[in-house]
Amino acid sequence: MDVGFYGLGRMGANMTRRLVKNGEHRVVAGNRSPGPVDEVVKDGAEGAYSMEELVEKLSGDGPRAITVMVPAGDVTEQALLKLADMMDEGDILIDGGNSYFRDSVRRAEMLGEKGIRFLDQGTSGGVWGLQVGYCLMVGGDASAFEHVEPALKTLAPPNGYAYLGEAGAGHFTKMVHNGVEYGMMQAYAEGFEILEKSQYDFDLRAISSLWNQGSVVRSWLLELAENAFEQDGHLDSVRGYAEDSGEGRWTILEAINEDVPAHVISASLFARFASRQDDSFAMKVIAALRGQFGGHAIQEASTKYPEQK
Amino acid sequence: MDVGFYGLGRMGANMTRRLVKNGEHRVVAGNRSPGPVDEVVKDGAEGAYSMEELVEKLSGDGPRAITVMVPAGDVTEQALLKLADMMDEGDILIDGGNSYFRDSVRRAEMLGEKGIRFLDQGTSGGVWGLQVGYCLMVGGDASAFEHVEPALKTLAPPNGYAYLGEAGAGHFTKMVHNGVEYGMMQAYAEGFEILEKSQYDFDLRAISSLWNQGSVVRSWLLELAENAFEQDGHLDSVRGYAEDSGEGRWTILEAINEDVPAHVISASLFARFASRQDDSFAMKVIAALRGQFGGHAIQEASTKYPEQK
Amino acid sequence: MDVGFYGLGRMGANMTRRLVKNGEHRVVAGNRSPGPVDEVVKDGAEGAYSMEELVEKLSGDGPRAITVMVPAGDVTEQALLKLADMMDEGDILIDGGNSYFRDSVRRAEMLGEKGIRFLDQGTSGGVWGLQVGYCLMVGGDASAFEHVEPALKTLAPPNGYAYLGEAGAGHFTKMVHNGVEYGMMQAYAEGFEILEKSQYDFDLRAISSLWNQGSVVRSWLLELAENAFEQDGHLDSVRGYAEDSGEGRWTILEAINEDVPAHVISASLFARFASRQDDSFAMKVIAALRGQFGGHAIQEASTKYPEQK
Amino acid sequence: MDVGFYGLGRMGANMTRRLVKNGEHRVVAGNRSPGPVDEVVKDGAEGAYSMEELVEKLSGDGPRAITVMVPAGDVTEQALLKLADMMDEGDILIDGGNSYFRDSVRRAEMLGEKGIRFLDQGTSGGVWGLQVGYCLMVGGDASAFEHVEPALKTLAPPNGYAYLGEAGAGHFTKMVHNGVEYGMMQAYAEGFEILEKSQYDFDLRAISSLWNQGSVVRSWLLELAENAFEQDGHLDSVRGYAEDSGEGRWTILEAINEDVPAHVISASLFARFASRQDDSFAMKVIAALRGQFGGHAIQEASTKYPEQK
Repeated sequence: MDVGFYGLGRMGANMTRRLVKNGEHRVVAGNRSPGPVDEVVKDGAEGAYSMEELVEKLSGDGPRAITVMVPAGDVTEQALLKLADMMDEGDILIDGGNSYFRDSVRRAEMLGEKGIRFLDQGTSGGVWGLQVGYCLMVGGDASAFEHVEPALKTLAPPNGYAYLGEAGAGHFTKMVHNGVEYGMMQAYAEGFEILEKSQYDFDLRAISSLWNQGSVVRSWLLELAENAFEQDGHLDSVRGYAEDSGEGRWTILEAINEDVPAHVISASLFARFASRQDDSFAMKVIAALRGQFGGHAIQEASTKYPEQK
Repeated sequence: MDVGFYGLGRMGANMTRRLVKNGEHRVVAGNRSPGPVDEVVKDGAEGAYSMEELVEKLSGDGPRAITVMVPAGDVTEQALLKLADMMDEGDILIDGGNSYFRDSVRRAEMLGEKGIRFLDQGTSGGVWGLQVGYCLMVGGDASAFEHVEPALKTLAPPNGYAYLGEAGAGHFTKMVHNGVEYGMMQAYAEGFEILEKSQYDFDLRAISSLWNQGSVVRSWLLELAENAFEQDGHLDSVRGYAEDSGEGRWTILEAINEDVPAHVISASLFARFASRQDDSFAMKVIAALRGQFGGHAIQEASTKYPEQK
Repeated sequence: MDVGFYGLGRMGANMTRRLVKNGEHRVVAGNRSPGPVDEVVKDGAEGAYSMEELVEKLSGDGPRAITVMVPAGDVTEQALLKLADMMDEGDILIDGGNSYFRDSVRRAEMLGEKGIRFLDQGTSGGVWGLQVGYCLMVGGDASAFEHVEPALKTLAPPNGYAYLGEAGAGHFTKMVHNGVEYGMMQAYAEGFEILEKSQYDFDLRAISSLWNQGSVVRSWLLELAENAFEQDGHLDSVRGYAEDSGEGRWTILEAINEDVPAHVISASLFARFASRQDDSFAMKVIAALRGQFGGHAIQEASTKYPEQK
Repeated sequence: MDVGFYGLGRMGANMTRRLVKNGEHRVVAGNRSPGPVDEVVKDGAEGAYSMEELVEKLSGDGPRAITVMVPAGDVTEQALLKLADMMDEGDILIDGGNSYFRDSVRRAEMLGEKGIRFLDQGTSGGVWGLQVGYCLMVGGDASAFEHVEPALKTLAPPNGYAYLGEAGAGHFTKMVHNGVEYGMMQAYAEGFEILEKSQYDFDLRAISSLWNQGSVVRSWLLELAENAFEQDGHLDSVRGYAEDSGEGRWTILEAINEDVPAHVISASLFARFASRQDDSFAMKVIAALRGQFGGHAIQEASTKYPEQK
């Protein structure tokens, strides 16, 4: 089928490559700046150097379908609205990025008023998706889903895409997916710290590898852990600093909205916050209070970190 | 090789079956009561209806090797000590159960004084191990490990066993493995609750299946979740009640011993505690305090649960 | 000074009583329904049986000042807007309820456009405020604060009111106050549960009382705990069921907004969620997964709670 | 009454001072090194420059009573055993330090076999105890408690001491007290961090002071917070580094032993662990995994902390 892509960051570019490579689709790819377009053209996509060109090159018999892969928030909103203004009734827009599901619900309505059919598509797979396929969680207009299914089938591994419900269902599922991901990663991380600081001289690469053979905790993340420990056995070169994208935060907002106790996912999010703090104001308060009531020595803020016991 | 087993509960019996089925080993199997012995004899093991018989039947050219698979704690300790008293210098005892690693360190020393070589073997795989193989995490006497390697190779899937270090290292690793398992399960569980209580009418079986195709959270536990949701889509027939074995608790004790923040694993353990409480004394205190300062209505202990909002 | 009140629930009615009792103020009190107005009139307030009458009776030399004490959300918004429409430029509206600080920021602007000076006032003290005084945390128009200070002084205990900053600062501070309150209550609650379930036969009333004499954990909440345990030594008559108002939730939203790790306050909020669940879907997932991999018995949803070990 | 003290650290020395100042007691004070003995002699105590001298100077009509105030663990055990060997049947030993209650149970038995009556006394109050009095939580031999009650009355504020049950009950209660203390402090600490990082320019000293006037969260710890913020409004000079003593850890061990969910107290303990880590191994694992699956940039371990967003 004819497939349009707008936004050729790492994810978007690789997705066009996977579609092109398959050989069954005509892929037209656009981007704000021309460089990434040139790159995917080399790999066999048709280039579109403006939104207008993208929309134009997709004009044919059936409805157009364009997947937008740009940063969540205002950038996504603007791209969707601008494209919609150039498109025709019945055309399809897909937001394959990490948008907040409430935005997607709102956008589905907004685009629907313009006659555009909208799909919110959560996309998982990271840099491995090009080779393995992307797990695609799709919500929104069911007829649009059916129309773009040939492309989804190519993008995903076998059985790796599904229609999950009305507008927002795709991004909601991707949001929770990432919340679960935070919790799983933190579970492994705590376990590896307990192993690393133990009285034993454990080989964490060997344990990651072993656990992946028949144990209850085997998983793809654990395979990645094995890779990581193979590259640096004690992670000496890595700083314990972790960003978070919006999904973990939204998962907690939604847990609170639904009265769901989410101890593990919230703790995982907070651990990332803490990893980015140079010093903790909360712990300054603790230190100051201990100084007040117990005469416990307070370390000056400039003090170097002491050797841990 | 000649392999002895003592303790034919679900795990022990299946392990003898996997060894027998392989065809390369002579398996002598004993148990406190005769029934389970009869069962594995039907499947091709040699039966031993007493410890004495078990030890006797393993007398041959080389050292004897007996794996003990009985409940952790005193039962394991007594079984090991009794067997050791009947065995000869250089013979091998393997504790394949879920013992506390500090007990294993102590027992290695105790048995070593009797000339018995001891291995502590963490065994993961559950009811699936018979078919898939057991993940075996082994610590203790390195020469004993080499001796029993042919049996370990048969019990485990490919690359599914390893020697991890001196006495206790096997059970330590299995302990942490289970702590990680608690955290992973709770991460999934929170995620599924957020999906289930959402504004969408999600099909959790479909989502489990989908996430296992190329997504970052794919894992064997998620495959099991798919099975579970296939059997009961909203788990209506299942009560939210979860036991815990010792490993989760020991993992937290060890985290505290090592100064490791273990927010996620501890929260997972506490969630299991809470699942087993009919009412929470802590929350009675909260309710009583709210009544004291705010005049908030206190529900009587006998009150039925109200509809949730 | 002349003081207007709109909203005579438990908090609002008691606040008018405290003002009247002081003798220095003329208090005009209105309410949606007439009953509560009749009550406070008996205690010396002037009654206003409509918003119009309330505004009318406050017409005099200076600017009018009316405190609104109605449920947060739309009820508060409507009351403020209706009153504003009847008032004159320079008049003062105070929201003394538990509004979300972002609403207060927005309302300050909205009312400012009508020439009305707005104060957002967090009010703590519960049913004890009538006698002890209310702790008043005030944000918004600084000139309005100065104008109403005589009334605040009467409502609060000595030094028990303060101007904390621009619009929203009062409700922000009250929000965090309640978040801290959740955490403190949960800390005591966990401690009392550990005492109650210990091997000792502790008298929790005696311990609450003792801890309030010179110990580090002495507090007013602990005095309330002593009262509660005096009424029911083991809280047998109290169900462990705790509502939460919006503040705890908003505190977590704000923590996430500011990248602040809030393990304790979020855990306290989640404990309240859990206290209101008849069964936990998350724990159903755990139970189902354990059944899948370990053959662990699953309890049917209808099963009675077993005796705890 | 005649009162013996052994161990004149900050706590022990101040306790002897409070007893001496009262005028009703004869206080004999000993210490391992002579310096602290000289100090309390200046303040009116009788000095004992050896254990023998301490025991000798307390020989009189009735049973001797000696309070030991030395570091928990082996130091306490040795001091108790050595003193016991010099004392007579019916004499009384009091452990006023922060011992683990299980040690106290064991010591009560051990000393009981020597005919020595033992009391385990949890002591709270910190540096303020000298002036305000110490909150004393006492377990053990009830007849011994009655004998030493005159001294306890002097040491404590009014109603500030109590007999709580058999051996270990005093240290158990003190353990839980400290666990609660950790949770309360962390609740305040998180709240203050949320205030400090907010869009408002809050004066935390003013808020601490305000909250102590009639609000639900008023407490002695909050008075100390006011002092701390008065000395350093944004705690710029304080490093967020907090030690922990054994009690918080033991509280979690005991919670686990009793199947009590202790989310808040454990999170407070873990926050202290994290405050002492130069880098977090768990977060290195998270960073490494993110690098593996997402191509997210990993910061080198030597990188300086970036500006927080």
